[in-house]
Amino acid sequence: MIENLLHRNDSKILLIVLDGLGGLPVKDGKTELEIANTPNLDNLAKVSALGMHIPVDYGITPGSGPGHLGLFGYDPLKYQIGRGILEALGLGLEVRHTDIAIRGNYATVEYVNDRPIVKDRRAGRIPTEENRRITKKLQESLREIDGVQVIIAPGMEHRVAIVLRFPEELPEGSDEINDTDPQEVGKEPLKPVGRNPNAERVARVVEKFVEKVSQLLKEEPKANYLLLRGFAQKPRIPTMEERFGVKPCCIAVYPMYKGLASLVGMDIIKFEGNTIQGEINTLKKVWSDYDFFFVHIKKTDSYGEDGNWEGKVSVIEDFDRHLPQFLELKPDVLAITGDHSTPSKLKGHSWHPVPLLINSPYVLGGTSERFTERECLKGELGILPAQKIMNLLLANALRLKKFGA
Amino acid sequence: MIENLLHRNDSKILLIVLDGLGGLPVKDGKTELEIANTPNLDNLAKVSALGMHIPVDYGITPGSGPGHLGLFGYDPLKYQIGRGILEALGLGLEVRHTDIAIRGNYATVEYVNDRPIVKDRRAGRIPTEENRRITKKLQESLREIDGVQVIIAPGMEHRVAIVLRFPEELPEGSDEINDTDPQEVGKEPLKPVGRNPNAERVARVVEKFVEKVSQLLKEEPKANYLLLRGFAQKPRIPTMEERFGVKPCCIAVYPMYKGLASLVGMDIIKFEGNTIQGEINTLKKVWSDYDFFFVHIKKTDSYGEDGNWEGKVSVIEDFDRHLPQFLELKPDVLAITGDHSTPSKLKGHSWHPVPLLINSPYVLGGTSERFTERECLKGELGILPAQKIMNLLLANALRLKKFGA
Repeated sequence: MIENLLHRNDSKILLIVLDGLGGLPVKDGKTELEIANTPNLDNLAKVSALGMHIPVDYGITPGSGPGHLGLFGYDPLKYQIGRGILEALGLGLEVRHTDIAIRGNYATVEYVNDRPIVKDRRAGRIPTEENRRITKKLQESLREIDGVQVIIAPGMEHRVAIVLRFPEELPEGSDEINDTDPQEVGKEPLKPVGRNPNAERVARVVEKFVEKVSQLLKEEPKANYLLLRGFAQKPRIPTMEERFGVKPCCIAVYPMYKGLASLVGMDIIKFEGNTIQGEINTLKKVWSDYDFFFVHIKKTDSYGEDGNWEGKVSVIEDFDRHLPQFLELKPDVLAITGDHSTPSKLKGHSWHPVPLLINSPYVLGGTSERFTERECLKGELGILPAQKIMNLLLANALRLKKFGA
Repeated sequence: MIENLLHRNDSKILLIVLDGLGGLPVKDGKTELEIANTPNLDNLAKVSALGMHIPVDYGITPGSGPGHLGLFGYDPLKYQIGRGILEALGLGLEVRHTDIAIRGNYATVEYVNDRPIVKDRRAGRIPTEENRRITKKLQESLREIDGVQVIIAPGMEHRVAIVLRFPEELPEGSDEINDTDPQEVGKEPLKPVGRNPNAERVARVVEKFVEKVSQLLKEEPKANYLLLRGFAQKPRIPTMEERFGVKPCCIAVYPMYKGLASLVGMDIIKFEGNTIQGEINTLKKVWSDYDFFFVHIKKTDSYGEDGNWEGKVSVIEDFDRHLPQFLELKPDVLAITGDHSTPSKLKGHSWHPVPLLINSPYVLGGTSERFTERECLKGELGILPAQKIMNLLLANALRLKKFGA
């Protein structure tokens, strides 16, 4: 409904996402945020609106895609991002409406009567270096099939992302193709089949692609085949400018998050380095060019995934030391949160609500002493769905008109 | 959506429902839960996730049907259970997809020109003993009509439940038949009419049933007629196994709750007695046979309905004394809650949110000192719809995969 209430002004909104921020008790009954020494966050929390957000739904553990879409104000159930697209974005590939993106696994097959039989679905988890060598060979020898451009990017171990770029935009449903991975050893890879005529046209290109790849890899000792999964098109998502009337940009280190931001129409700001200071320097440079800034900090999640709570604490403390520099920019609205929780205790994403802080001149504040899970529970925002946060940011920026008279 | 995220493991989930648990201040500003001396619940509450659940909607007072369906993870607005079905389940009758279940009231009629005119819609609220005698007479003389089996069970005072069991499954809508109770004295009972051809077929059997009953009861001084209401078929509800991938069982004393549990596909464990200790002994016996256990404790509601807050407090304290035995079973996830509130002050079900406790290794905890309405409000679960509880139980049992990548 807010599309009809939008009112542009020159306010600036800064959304800082500490990936996987929320946690669970890890030491003396305290969470990572509770253990961390965060004087700057504490001071800010005392005068801010606090709460907890639920990224997708109660009990649902979100991947990075739904986690971020929610924060950007999109219903993550309505806008689902295919696996192939996420894989491609994560490996830094651009995706367009002319493209089919695919996840690939190098695999080992044995030929029995000239038919490939899967012996190892992950080619013995070949080292990433090996993957790069093999992928480079494919990149050099296989640039095009029947006018369709082939783009391949190496991932970790046996994983690759593939983009098949057609000469024209593909109709919706063109990605409705079955995985070729038979999911079991001892079986023949499945033939790609389209579930409709458009997808069938793509499937025929995929079939040729698989054939050519297997010829090129025939002499490889382990990675002599490529299994394909998660065929996906770029989702058709209205931009943040269209939906919320903001001119947004993204400052992130990791390709996946830049890719997600680009899906909702953010400009991706290029910069060198991978530190919070590098992100701040970049933010300062573009501060006058945009009015919505998404800054992504990855390492809270990475350490959480490793079960390394001390590491997660240290990233939170590092962020706290940099917080004054963000505040110096004087955003009209500042939000600090995560896209989901990644408790070190669970070594992975989780379903737990995520701490949320919103600061503007128009908050109540004074509810809580710190920016932690338990203190956020006392806050004025309560427990709310992630996709409502964007409403609150726009409201605090005085960018929403009254509804009804 | 969680149907696609299910991941079975060998975890065990224990859901204990203290019927009508929530209350209102009854003495010194304290609720029944606040007055009760509950050292074991207090200790558990300190390390658990707490919150309040709303069974159906803000301000809505649920009956037992919607109250329990919500707890079992079903939308109580989508899956509505007909009155006749609840009456039959409450009196311990089995219901099948071949059946029409009906609520009956013994009534007094006077015959004017051979037509029955209602003099008392409740036959002067005859004693239950009288009801049993009359119902037994009907049971013995009226076992079948045109191949349709007739099953009658006596309730309290003038109430009975009737099940008409057809030889084959009835199509949906076969229960769309008007009540025969004219709702006023001085009027003739209404003729049962089906609102569609399938219901009309049933209505003709009902008409014969009413005729035969009135012949059999003709000489009764008071209960010489039977008025019928709430024609209902067994609802078509997917089982908990289908929806949530659990193998569930029910341990309850009262027929209504066993019946509700059977509607969602729980196995009903038979046992002797009506004490919490009896329920625990039974639970221990079947602990290795299931992975989802619904234990129902009735008396909190019964005393609440009577306005007997001391009685309700004593049941809560009795449960508290037994809590360690439940904990000894080491469920992976333990939930303690009610199906609705029954404040002694209101002497009936109410719309108030219901205290909820979830314990697992993956909760925050440390928010509250006790398991009471006011302490649950401080908890990490906030105020949530009852039908989301099942998501949380599955998540805490690590039975839900990540949504999206």
